[in-house]
Amino acid sequence: MTPTTDRPDPAVLAALAEQTIELPSWAFGNSGTRFKVFGQPGTARTPFEKLEDAAQVHAHTGLAPRVSLHIPWDRVDDYGALAAHAADLGVRIGAINSNLFQDDDYRLGSLTHPDRAVRKKAIAHHTECVDVMRATGSTDLKLWLPDGTNYAGQDDIRARQDRLAESLQEIYALLDPHMRLLLEYKFFEPYFYTTDIPDWGTSLLHCLALGERAQVVLDTGHHAPNTNIEFIVVQLLRAGRLGAFDFNSRNYADDDLIVGAADPFQLFRIMNEIVGNDALRPESGVNFMLDQCHNIEPKIPGQIRSVLNVQEATAKALLVDRDALRAAQHAGDVLGANAVLMDAYHTDIRPLLAAFRESRGLPADPFSAYRASGHGEKIAAERVGGEQASWGA
Amino acid sequence: MTPTTDRPDPAVLAALAEQTIELPSWAFGNSGTRFKVFGQPGTARTPFEKLEDAAQVHAHTGLAPRVSLHIPWDRVDDYGALAAHAADLGVRIGAINSNLFQDDDYRLGSLTHPDRAVRKKAIAHHTECVDVMRATGSTDLKLWLPDGTNYAGQDDIRARQDRLAESLQEIYALLDPHMRLLLEYKFFEPYFYTTDIPDWGTSLLHCLALGERAQVVLDTGHHAPNTNIEFIVVQLLRAGRLGAFDFNSRNYADDDLIVGAADPFQLFRIMNEIVGNDALRPESGVNFMLDQCHNIEPKIPGQIRSVLNVQEATAKALLVDRDALRAAQHAGDVLGANAVLMDAYHTDIRPLLAAFRESRGLPADPFSAYRASGHGEKIAAERVGGEQASWGA
Amino acid sequence: MTPTTDRPDPAVLAALAEQTIELPSWAFGNSGTRFKVFGQPGTARTPFEKLEDAAQVHAHTGLAPRVSLHIPWDRVDDYGALAAHAADLGVRIGAINSNLFQDDDYRLGSLTHPDRAVRKKAIAHHTECVDVMRATGSTDLKLWLPDGTNYAGQDDIRARQDRLAESLQEIYALLDPHMRLLLEYKFFEPYFYTTDIPDWGTSLLHCLALGERAQVVLDTGHHAPNTNIEFIVVQLLRAGRLGAFDFNSRNYADDDLIVGAADPFQLFRIMNEIVGNDALRPESGVNFMLDQCHNIEPKIPGQIRSVLNVQEATAKALLVDRDALRAAQHAGDVLGANAVLMDAYHTDIRPLLAAFRESRGLPADPFSAYRASGHGEKIAAERVGGEQASWGA
Amino acid sequence: MTPTTDRPDPAVLAALAEQTIELPSWAFGNSGTRFKVFGQPGTARTPFEKLEDAAQVHAHTGLAPRVSLHIPWDRVDDYGALAAHAADLGVRIGAINSNLFQDDDYRLGSLTHPDRAVRKKAIAHHTECVDVMRATGSTDLKLWLPDGTNYAGQDDIRARQDRLAESLQEIYALLDPHMRLLLEYKFFEPYFYTTDIPDWGTSLLHCLALGERAQVVLDTGHHAPNTNIEFIVVQLLRAGRLGAFDFNSRNYADDDLIVGAADPFQLFRIMNEIVGNDALRPESGVNFMLDQCHNIEPKIPGQIRSVLNVQEATAKALLVDRDALRAAQHAGDVLGANAVLMDAYHTDIRPLLAAFRESRGLPADPFSAYRASGHGEKIAAERVGGEQASWGA
Repeated sequence: MTPTTDRPDPAVLAALAEQTIELPSWAFGNSGTRFKVFGQPGTARTPFEKLEDAAQVHAHTGLAPRVSLHIPWDRVDDYGALAAHAADLGVRIGAINSNLFQDDDYRLGSLTHPDRAVRKKAIAHHTECVDVMRATGSTDLKLWLPDGTNYAGQDDIRARQDRLAESLQEIYALLDPHMRLLLEYKFFEPYFYTTDIPDWGTSLLHCLALGERAQVVLDTGHHAPNTNIEFIVVQLLRAGRLGAFDFNSRNYADDDLIVGAADPFQLFRIMNEIVGNDALRPESGVNFMLDQCHNIEPKIPGQIRSVLNVQEATAKALLVDRDALRAAQHAGDVLGANAVLMDAYHTDIRPLLAAFRESRGLPADPFSAYRASGHGEKIAAERVGGEQASWGA
Repeated sequence: MTPTTDRPDPAVLAALAEQTIELPSWAFGNSGTRFKVFGQPGTARTPFEKLEDAAQVHAHTGLAPRVSLHIPWDRVDDYGALAAHAADLGVRIGAINSNLFQDDDYRLGSLTHPDRAVRKKAIAHHTECVDVMRATGSTDLKLWLPDGTNYAGQDDIRARQDRLAESLQEIYALLDPHMRLLLEYKFFEPYFYTTDIPDWGTSLLHCLALGERAQVVLDTGHHAPNTNIEFIVVQLLRAGRLGAFDFNSRNYADDDLIVGAADPFQLFRIMNEIVGNDALRPESGVNFMLDQCHNIEPKIPGQIRSVLNVQEATAKALLVDRDALRAAQHAGDVLGANAVLMDAYHTDIRPLLAAFRESRGLPADPFSAYRASGHGEKIAAERVGGEQASWGA
Repeated sequence: MTPTTDRPDPAVLAALAEQTIELPSWAFGNSGTRFKVFGQPGTARTPFEKLEDAAQVHAHTGLAPRVSLHIPWDRVDDYGALAAHAADLGVRIGAINSNLFQDDDYRLGSLTHPDRAVRKKAIAHHTECVDVMRATGSTDLKLWLPDGTNYAGQDDIRARQDRLAESLQEIYALLDPHMRLLLEYKFFEPYFYTTDIPDWGTSLLHCLALGERAQVVLDTGHHAPNTNIEFIVVQLLRAGRLGAFDFNSRNYADDDLIVGAADPFQLFRIMNEIVGNDALRPESGVNFMLDQCHNIEPKIPGQIRSVLNVQEATAKALLVDRDALRAAQHAGDVLGANAVLMDAYHTDIRPLLAAFRESRGLPADPFSAYRASGHGEKIAAERVGGEQASWGA
Repeated sequence: MTPTTDRPDPAVLAALAEQTIELPSWAFGNSGTRFKVFGQPGTARTPFEKLEDAAQVHAHTGLAPRVSLHIPWDRVDDYGALAAHAADLGVRIGAINSNLFQDDDYRLGSLTHPDRAVRKKAIAHHTECVDVMRATGSTDLKLWLPDGTNYAGQDDIRARQDRLAESLQEIYALLDPHMRLLLEYKFFEPYFYTTDIPDWGTSLLHCLALGERAQVVLDTGHHAPNTNIEFIVVQLLRAGRLGAFDFNSRNYADDDLIVGAADPFQLFRIMNEIVGNDALRPESGVNFMLDQCHNIEPKIPGQIRSVLNVQEATAKALLVDRDALRAAQHAGDVLGANAVLMDAYHTDIRPLLAAFRESRGLPADPFSAYRASGHGEKIAAERVGGEQASWGA
């Protein structure tokens, strides 16, 4: 009954060969909590260095050919040069993320601010982002709306939704026809009473109002306690509106830990729905991204561990015996159906993946290979002086 | 700055005069936890006696002219006689609730069950409910879908949504043109892995697919921890799909305590959005219902306390100085806007309501008046023998 | 680096050979939610039949030589006969659980009830339990205190603690010198405002006041959302007061699902602390018990799956390379230390355990072996008539 | 039945006259989230200016005669001068808080760090804090331990407890005989897997091990979702170990909003236990402190609102008819007992407090009086140049 990993199904290998995970440039800058940002030796100082770090992840894993940028954190004079640098490194630019939370004007909101002038400024920021998209070949404009309020009565909940709808329409109109708007939701933080897009329902309603190229981003850390995330994955796929994942993990709030670290079984269940609903294929349009903070661990190894965790969960999901699963489900065999799923989960997929990697000229164990490469020590020695990148840079 | 309660605004009194809250018949039967159902002296034994108890609540408060039925718990031979009995008592039949959770066939689901035969049975149950609606003059068919799974893999999440959509369409087609389908969501329980309608987004998607007479029911106890409920109220009003409330309160899960008992400020914030979005008027179509369990406290006083809590929160919401609130919000005066809201909340509204009640021939203090009436002792003495109503009856 | 499972460490096998898990008699009766108890064919009707079912679990797994009783659910005329029946079946009686939640007198509490007469009744119930212990050779008296309140002000929180302390002292005094009092805590349910022993801190304080033979019971489903349970395991071990586990799993509240079903990684982390703090050995005094409800799945296979899940998690915990772990921890190697742990977790332990079982004359796959045995069909056919056991019986 | 506020009980007024609330110096510096710290005009730049701001709160409310310092944030050359400055302003120095979270060495912990040298550094920091205490007349050394881990396996949970116990003993030994050690707990943040003092039980165990002058600090925002805080208040009072409150409020995590803003009824219930357990009196040893962030609202008005919220909740708690409450509790009158409590809560206490303030030469409405005073504008105009204080300063 155990899935065979000795002679793996060619379809499984083909699916794995197509899988890609997008890295966030900001994972290679310093990050932290409100209490402290710990610096790390060798942290990238420029968008160019961030791409170099990201390229290390791809070189070792073959999984991460794209890098998301964050504007203005990754502002450069010449985006064409940046894209060319990426190409030289074997990667390319992915989604462009707009920053709506680090300007003093946004204290009471950006796209939902009571003052039309502030909203216009926030909307205008996306013109720059779309320009970056054109210059870098990016097709995904990604918005996380940090807006919200801290106190009951502080602002009108309904009016903020109306303002948001209007602002989003103006941004959507900026896009070229082949571009998408990816709209993220988040339960709370950085505001603590209302959040203007707190859940998938709100994000989806706005996307439906905008048009087909507006899609929802599911960040795995952005839900209320105890929320069943794979259920939401299915809902968004059923509605045809799952645009992207922001992968990470959490035990408490938006902890932004390494994906799969807090609950590897949850990650497997999510990937199981992705596979079971045929959304793993690149043509599905789901952009699988990371969005994490490596506050205390080294960043490049942290990203390598992260993409490996996603790959392992995916491989296990691909091993699920779907005929057996369906048969047990139809028979109402509760424990039997569960056992089919767990059988795949309990399989040690690492030997299969090691062989798969070697067959593609990659290290069998990318995590150890990177550690052994001396690259971490090299950048620590070289990147002296200048200012290390971080969320504020 | 404090809202005046000495010479109340006639508009406030007019709004209060129009307010109604629907009582659930099952609040007058015994209820409990999975561990124990405590019986109480005087508990109603028949649907007719439940109506008599509900009529006591209305007689003392003037707030509760309607009673929801639950089929089959309130099955009688002659629904016309039941409706006439209600009319004699000064109340009428409200929503009809269909029961989908107490048949052995529903172990793995009702409207979402893998077996089409079980789904047909569950759908057919609504034919009976619609007949009851016709016989009693009810216009609201209310569905709480208890369906879900306990174990990962137990059933296909997507397939269950598809089955649900199909089942709901068949039920919707049963309705007469003036009838509504009210669709409730619930975070979890009685299943503990997936719930087939766990959140407002899922309920709304199904309602949108059904048509305009499908509306969402918001039960205040059916959310993930920390969820901002008034935000959802606003979303559903903005979408034109808030069909009804099931009022109660909770500290932990779906505790079904007396509304306003656990967090009176939350109830005020909810009613504040209702008032602020002009949804208090009867024409708004929002049916304000209770759905509670009086496990350890006496039931009629428990219901009286509940409708009074809603009335007090409503009256406070009506006192909010909306011009001042808007001005502070537009000025970005965070503390000032909050203060306007809190000013109404901190007002002791009870004298105003006492006077309002007396002006309508009602007791100033309905809770104490009922206690003093001796009715509780009377039914305890009279209702001897027979079987007390409960969830299983 | 991967732990070797081909030539397993004899110490691992020795530790596995000593491991035992206690089964609850009530897992073999029907259970459910407040909404519905689904009956199942073949459900045991008497304490004797429950022991027969439990013996099936032990016969197939070699893991479950003890069965907890629950008084009065398992009340029989002759406890000596019951114990002898157990012995004939190859098992024995474990902890005795006292029931404090199914008497009408306990509506407002049992050991904490405002009325001393009710408290005396609840205390007196333990005299019967201790008699059962003497008659069956049990040494553990297990108390789950369901007491609490539903409404603020309902009772005095402090007074209830004082009453509880007094009641517990009287119960503790009933014990023979070789007996222990195991005191469970629970976050909420069946009451929804206060719980009189809601957390490990409260339980421990009462145990410290009672004496050395009072120990804390950790039920894995009895915590607030997001609680780190393995941390509590360590705290109780450090204090020398971890008396027992009630194993189960949950996604939401006290769901009482099969242990390891909701979060297998959590179960592994718990067992990792047990192993790492040398508390797996029988002499540690920790009684590893199950406490679950098989509401929709068959009960004997459900219990088999449960003990297997605990065994698998234990085996993985035994595989952790503790020298490597300690070295990485001392070096401050965050990702490396985590990798050591995950290495054991990702190992497919099932082949090792299959071989281990066969070496002891047990089926390699107990779950499938039981299914294939026809026992489930046999008891369904035989156990006709009579009343199936359930929480109320 | 409504509590009389027209002719207030002299005992109530006497209790209110004795009430004091300690302000945190850091509330007058800028604060924010990990995403953004918004600056505000007029923010204090030095510890001396923070004291001036705090003195404004006391001058308007008569409630806040003490100010907590945070070392090193409030490091000055001459603490005697700082204390004298406080005295000139009509306030004095309260607790001294030690900072254990802003040094690069503390990335993996401070008092629990694997490396003894780092622990020694963290312990040594308290020598400075005790010197500040001696120089300023402070008697409370307050520790919030931010230590924890982000990943399973990262460090040994048990070893960290042992190190913590040792570190705390060394710190306790630094204290003069009249000084107390106040030990705070927190559910999570800034670490996201384990927290070394995550709950009241852990803090209490360490305090019990240290000695009588070690007491627990209860921060109202530092609990798991749904936790009943007033229950913990009672537990700590019963154990004689409630040393201090850190007041604030939250909807989600440690939001650090204005106390009473998120759930005013919770604040009332907490103060009700304080009053009911006779812990309001200064001799009780409970230090009532604020610990909040005014991220978007002005700071001095935010603190004024905060102390007023505590005062209002206290006054309502003092109004509770304790004889009636006890009688209803003893009679098992669930709804009646709750009604006694709610009666006090629903009372509009503001007129009584306005009169009380005026009788003491204070403004009837301190919040409006401060706004009208022009002080906010004055400091905004005067405090130009220099660096505004914040958590990092």
